[in-house]
Amino acid sequence: MYDLIIVGGGPAGLTAGIYAVRSGLDTLVLDRSEISGQIALADIVENYPGFPSISGLELMEKYKSHAQEAGVKTKITDVLSVRSEGAKKIVSTDSGDLESRAVIIATGANPKHLDVPGEEELISKGVSYCAICDGPFFRNKTVVVIGGGNSAITDALFLSKIARKVYVIHRRDRLRAAKILQDRAFATSNIEFIFNACVAEIVGSKGEIRRVEKIALNDLKSREIRELATDGVFIYVGIHPNTEIVNVDKDEEGFIKTDRSLETSEKGIYAVGDCRDTNIWQLVAAVRDGALAATAANEYIENFKEQVK
Amino acid sequence: MYDLIIVGGGPAGLTAGIYAVRSGLDTLVLDRSEISGQIALADIVENYPGFPSISGLELMEKYKSHAQEAGVKTKITDVLSVRSEGAKKIVSTDSGDLESRAVIIATGANPKHLDVPGEEELISKGVSYCAICDGPFFRNKTVVVIGGGNSAITDALFLSKIARKVYVIHRRDRLRAAKILQDRAFATSNIEFIFNACVAEIVGSKGEIRRVEKIALNDLKSREIRELATDGVFIYVGIHPNTEIVNVDKDEEGFIKTDRSLETSEKGIYAVGDCRDTNIWQLVAAVRDGALAATAANEYIENFKEQVK
Repeated sequence: MYDLIIVGGGPAGLTAGIYAVRSGLDTLVLDRSEISGQIALADIVENYPGFPSISGLELMEKYKSHAQEAGVKTKITDVLSVRSEGAKKIVSTDSGDLESRAVIIATGANPKHLDVPGEEELISKGVSYCAICDGPFFRNKTVVVIGGGNSAITDALFLSKIARKVYVIHRRDRLRAAKILQDRAFATSNIEFIFNACVAEIVGSKGEIRRVEKIALNDLKSREIRELATDGVFIYVGIHPNTEIVNVDKDEEGFIKTDRSLETSEKGIYAVGDCRDTNIWQLVAAVRDGALAATAANEYIENFKEQVK
Repeated sequence: MYDLIIVGGGPAGLTAGIYAVRSGLDTLVLDRSEISGQIALADIVENYPGFPSISGLELMEKYKSHAQEAGVKTKITDVLSVRSEGAKKIVSTDSGDLESRAVIIATGANPKHLDVPGEEELISKGVSYCAICDGPFFRNKTVVVIGGGNSAITDALFLSKIARKVYVIHRRDRLRAAKILQDRAFATSNIEFIFNACVAEIVGSKGEIRRVEKIALNDLKSREIRELATDGVFIYVGIHPNTEIVNVDKDEEGFIKTDRSLETSEKGIYAVGDCRDTNIWQLVAAVRDGALAATAANEYIENFKEQVK
């Protein structure tokens, strides 16, 4: 039986691992891939103090090697469910059940879909949720970016250096992104903004090899529909937490509810980072969450050991 | 009038500055010295993700240059008080009054004193709260470290490489420090532990140049007092927040009470890092606090601007 199993090896999970190992806990981090965390897909990170400008992947690799140096053990596996059985926790994986005294859920979140006709069929055929992954396929082409927050504008800027033309389509009349990003985007000549509009449909080409050809845009003021030809559609309309594996209290969007120590409604199960009901989805918040939950889990486990003595 | 004044330029204050500037706020960070933050006094930091092992001073310099690159302006001055005047905030300094729309208090904390006879008179004469500052004066000498937490044990380890003998005196029967630090300390031959004991008095030498000569130890089990000869006394018994400059709700120890957005009981005044009622006094928590409060202050200021339009 492990002291602590951490589900998810992004920034929050690895930081929890570093703190747990330093506290002397026998700790295992589970993840489905070698490098994870949404941040690994970020073109440039400029707001993690200590690194004025670094790629998301490079930063994630630094976290990873820091965790390894600290002695954090990792196992690549798919976690199917987490539950309590008496005072024990059972973590079911596709390679069998594991047991621990406490669990930290650090499963993060994934991009939300628009849920419009054409979207699902055209994923990887022009529809994308990650400019850094798919942007290079659109050299000298036309792309649209859907959204007005930091992710949308960061990736619009990234795409503006590859594509011939970038449309940013946002359903409000102004952006939500940080002022510094807005300023950069407004000063970029091949970025054009379409406000007060949303996508009604993504339309693919006919024929054998279907690809994105155009979108139907709904003007939210005039209520008119118009078409816009494009080769790619990059979607940034929020995130959806990966919390299906655990049955604890969640908010209406599925984010796990946590108390001041990041404990969930189930004793000994904690949640950290993007998958919980945080009010700031940022790297600095993820690493703080990891440290706090590992510290709280350590206290919980100390008491647990005394009880079963 | 500034949009935002941040009082304190440690990790929390500088991170708030980075986030505020990126949000387009006209921001000023005030501090009384060029490099601040308790972390600058740490020998080694191994739990700030991304840097497996770095000195506190080096890390603080990285934060500082990151903030400068982001465009954060800093002014060296002593802040005397922070108060609201209508919707404006007035920050009184020893070089005059400044005005802003919002304020973030990031004044940190300082080591607590033992409050025993002899302590105050012998500060800098053998009594210290910082091994990295004063340790080198004790080469091949005998020192005592008071406390059982991370700071005490980290600094006992640091001192063990300089001093001939290090006594760690703790009033409980076991340490509170991270297991990894405990293991290292127990494995260090010139560190000796005295549990269940506290310092009743620090005694200086007679004569013109007074220096620490011995301490009177109170054995908490036998209730007997005994003397222990020592050249230095390093004290790590908690921290006291620097919150006298602002009149907002605080807990009984003086830590500023904050809500979920880190706003204090006074609208538009936020508190971050070690000076607030956090449950984890760690670097990762300080930087997260800075980001969160700057984001909340930005929203507050947006509304403020709309109101006064």
